[in-house]
Amino acid sequence: MIASDLPAYRLDLQYLGTSFLGWQSQPQGTAVQDHLEKALSTMLRHPVRVTGAARTDTGVHAEQQVAVFRTAVAYDERKWLKSLQGLLPPSVGVASIRTVGSDFHPILSAQAKVYRYRLWLGVTRNPLIAPFAWQIVSDLDVTAVAEAARDFVGLHDFTSFCAIDSTAKTRQREIYEVVVEQQGPLVDIWVSGSGFLKQMVRTMVGTLVDVGLGKRDAKSLPAVLAAKDRQAAGMTAPALGLSLVQICYGERPTVAELRTRLSAGFCVKLWP
Amino acid sequence: MIASDLPAYRLDLQYLGTSFLGWQSQPQGTAVQDHLEKALSTMLRHPVRVTGAARTDTGVHAEQQVAVFRTAVAYDERKWLKSLQGLLPPSVGVASIRTVGSDFHPILSAQAKVYRYRLWLGVTRNPLIAPFAWQIVSDLDVTAVAEAARDFVGLHDFTSFCAIDSTAKTRQREIYEVVVEQQGPLVDIWVSGSGFLKQMVRTMVGTLVDVGLGKRDAKSLPAVLAAKDRQAAGMTAPALGLSLVQICYGERPTVAELRTRLSAGFCVKLWP
Repeated sequence: MIASDLPAYRLDLQYLGTSFLGWQSQPQGTAVQDHLEKALSTMLRHPVRVTGAARTDTGVHAEQQVAVFRTAVAYDERKWLKSLQGLLPPSVGVASIRTVGSDFHPILSAQAKVYRYRLWLGVTRNPLIAPFAWQIVSDLDVTAVAEAARDFVGLHDFTSFCAIDSTAKTRQREIYEVVVEQQGPLVDIWVSGSGFLKQMVRTMVGTLVDVGLGKRDAKSLPAVLAAKDRQAAGMTAPALGLSLVQICYGERPTVAELRTRLSAGFCVKLWP
Repeated sequence: MIASDLPAYRLDLQYLGTSFLGWQSQPQGTAVQDHLEKALSTMLRHPVRVTGAARTDTGVHAEQQVAVFRTAVAYDERKWLKSLQGLLPPSVGVASIRTVGSDFHPILSAQAKVYRYRLWLGVTRNPLIAPFAWQIVSDLDVTAVAEAARDFVGLHDFTSFCAIDSTAKTRQREIYEVVVEQQGPLVDIWVSGSGFLKQMVRTMVGTLVDVGLGKRDAKSLPAVLAAKDRQAAGMTAPALGLSLVQICYGERPTVAELRTRLSAGFCVKLWP
């Protein structure tokens, strides 16, 4: 393919999942990939295809998504950023555009992907958080959730946690780390892994919430994994609580390292 | 007034300013106060009036607003929170409802009010921050902004920084502290004061941005204050960047103390 000889560029972007039919190109043209390819093609005046690092579902947010495109047009980051900002819908933002070697592949070069699922506990509502969290009104045993979550770590067949219409060739995935942290009404479930099947994090979270609500035993997850049957797991948690937080290249930071780094980057304080 | 003998309750609430015509009741009934009084009246089955601590303008967000109402209906916080959540629009949330003494007044009892104005510097756009920040594409000298901001501290006549249609009897206000902090592309301007005139923080910020863009000298603010003329100051910064962060009762924390406290409460990490 001649196109692959062209210089390659890496885009780092964010989006609000609520505005899009997920990452991957759709016939309706309303996926993030569609908007991005249209904007890049307009800007560069030739057809552009992008390859993304992760196929986020409809409604899932991204704090960092990575995509690669190729062009012979001369690189000018500031001009390109300004131009793309004008061409893209307000719910998607491009943080940087940098040159990468032709051996860089957004999926194959990734050491890990990190997602964060956010729960909001209790009857109060915080409108600043609500668009990004699944509200659980009943009492949730967060200690039981954290205990159960540990059984996800390691190399497993995740068929039980995968949408039945998945086209993935293998259902084996490695989970490096799961971190559950609570700060007042906010519970964050961080999951770092080699890769994820369709709806995998959301089904993991739906099953963990069953544990927290006392509907499942905290020690039941190994049996759910062993069943290799989607019906053995819990519900698919709503998309709004899920964010793709980071695609890691050239390193595999722990969740704690990543959190510290992101907080140093910046940290939005919200009340209470 | 017989109503004032009824038990008093303090509501702590948050709202997204973009959804409302500000705090104060409007003929169209689309202010936060209107929604709150309607919801409380429906819930308690009698007409309810609320008194708010601060009159935020159209588009200004609140991470903590305080309001007081009175009722003879028996107190049940969980039931009231659940009920109000169902009756209020999704852009307003009630964090707590507590009993207060009849001497508590949301405005008169306040020791300080703290606002935060958020700027986003550069050509990139972060859709997770954009609804809460004023984007400044040109180069901004943040050091000059911080230097100029110091001249706001103290007791001053703020006529130059007050909307010309203000009905305030006196334009004297005391600013306790102004903190300017930068974390990457994000610049937060925190202002703590005894009280604020209409559009005062936004006009202060508009004038500080003029300084940062080199359109005004960093030492020019004392002359602007002395002019007592709205035309001597800069533009009114857009409402979307402004949040009412805290109404302080029984104490007057420094901005640093407040930030630490809010971060401990919780802290939302965003990328980059």
